[in-house]
Amino acid sequence: MNGTLFGIGVGPGDPELLTLKAVRLLSRVRVVAYPAPLEGDSMARTIAAAHLPAGVEEIVLRMSFDPAKRADDVYDAGASAIARHLEAGRDVAVLCEGDPLFFGSFLYLFARLHERFSVEVVPGVSSMMACAALLGHPLTARDDALVVIPAPRPEEEIERLLAGAEAAAIMKLGRHLPKVWRVLQRLGLDQQALYIERAGLPAQRIRPLAEAVRDPAPPYFAMILVHRRGKAWN
Amino acid sequence: MNGTLFGIGVGPGDPELLTLKAVRLLSRVRVVAYPAPLEGDSMARTIAAAHLPAGVEEIVLRMSFDPAKRADDVYDAGASAIARHLEAGRDVAVLCEGDPLFFGSFLYLFARLHERFSVEVVPGVSSMMACAALLGHPLTARDDALVVIPAPRPEEEIERLLAGAEAAAIMKLGRHLPKVWRVLQRLGLDQQALYIERAGLPAQRIRPLAEAVRDPAPPYFAMILVHRRGKAWN
Repeated sequence: MNGTLFGIGVGPGDPELLTLKAVRLLSRVRVVAYPAPLEGDSMARTIAAAHLPAGVEEIVLRMSFDPAKRADDVYDAGASAIARHLEAGRDVAVLCEGDPLFFGSFLYLFARLHERFSVEVVPGVSSMMACAALLGHPLTARDDALVVIPAPRPEEEIERLLAGAEAAAIMKLGRHLPKVWRVLQRLGLDQQALYIERAGLPAQRIRPLAEAVRDPAPPYFAMILVHRRGKAWN
Repeated sequence: MNGTLFGIGVGPGDPELLTLKAVRLLSRVRVVAYPAPLEGDSMARTIAAAHLPAGVEEIVLRMSFDPAKRADDVYDAGASAIARHLEAGRDVAVLCEGDPLFFGSFLYLFARLHERFSVEVVPGVSSMMACAALLGHPLTARDDALVVIPAPRPEEEIERLLAGAEAAAIMKLGRHLPKVWRVLQRLGLDQQALYIERAGLPAQRIRPLAEAVRDPAPPYFAMILVHRRGKAWN
């Protein structure tokens, strides 16, 4: 009998934001897989490290930010390595930062494996909710709509999306921050927008958006939260 | 010295989706507060029950769905009761279904208390991510935008919001389901929309949306997830 593929949300960074279910499943699994940069530690593995059993087998998906390196090749190879364990009857847990189905790399393993193998997803605390908690900023209330916008989108699309909903979370900022800042200013939302970078990590920083936008290299792992009325409950 | 107000996300329903941090804080708290219907059990309390210490003091906010009953009065009274404990130096933990800052009643207690008292929010797994996991439906990927739409919004606004983003979650369905169904049909999204009701509860049901829409009284705790391309990774 084939093993089960578990997509396990390990939360946004604080190891205490793992769920009881994630901890239970990780403590008994024999194979884990996770994304990592080309060099250095995997954030997902670091978050879950205390709960991995001794001698667990590890499949590392080394991802590059270089668009010339095809991510598809990494996912193909990772999915093949995972499939071999599943076919041998071993469960495999994929460690996913935040929630497995809200952006992130699990989707591409899921796409390659979910028709052949049984898959169980354990939802996790997403970075959006963690940023809201750290900023003390309620995301949305009542019947307000919330839109989640990746900052690499073209400027006019960000403006249209932002203008259409009461609340917004803007992710993946990096070099797109000045563009987002221009849109917020045009919509008169720049004063109430809140900014946080590297939420939950040792290098976390909360600072005024007007200051962050002058940074020559703003980090990719940064988020802006904004509510059209300033506060969700108003 | 005043106590701290904790807003604790207890997740979408499965008690195993509590975080380690929520469990640690709940095990040592002496006062909890939570919303409940006018009669019957509080869902948030039921989820957290196994972790509440013996003899914990409980503040119950009895909420009515009747719009003639002013929710503000309930929040005012609840905030006053909580404030008395905080002023006496006792921490108070508010139990919040899902995540405390993503819809839900914690916001109204937060609004009344956050200027006078220190507040710490513990983010939780939201129902949106739990529904995605149960439906096996990736919410969004790459640079796709996701919009979260409360179904009580007017029909033309739902249509505008749905048309503007690649992915959507539509919440609080209840009697608004036929209206949402009409919009999905007009946009050609009715075939790929997925429906789940009472996610994570014993009465949970996943069924075709075309069937649910014929229900004379669809439940309020139901959700539709849809991606414009059918699948987020396509």
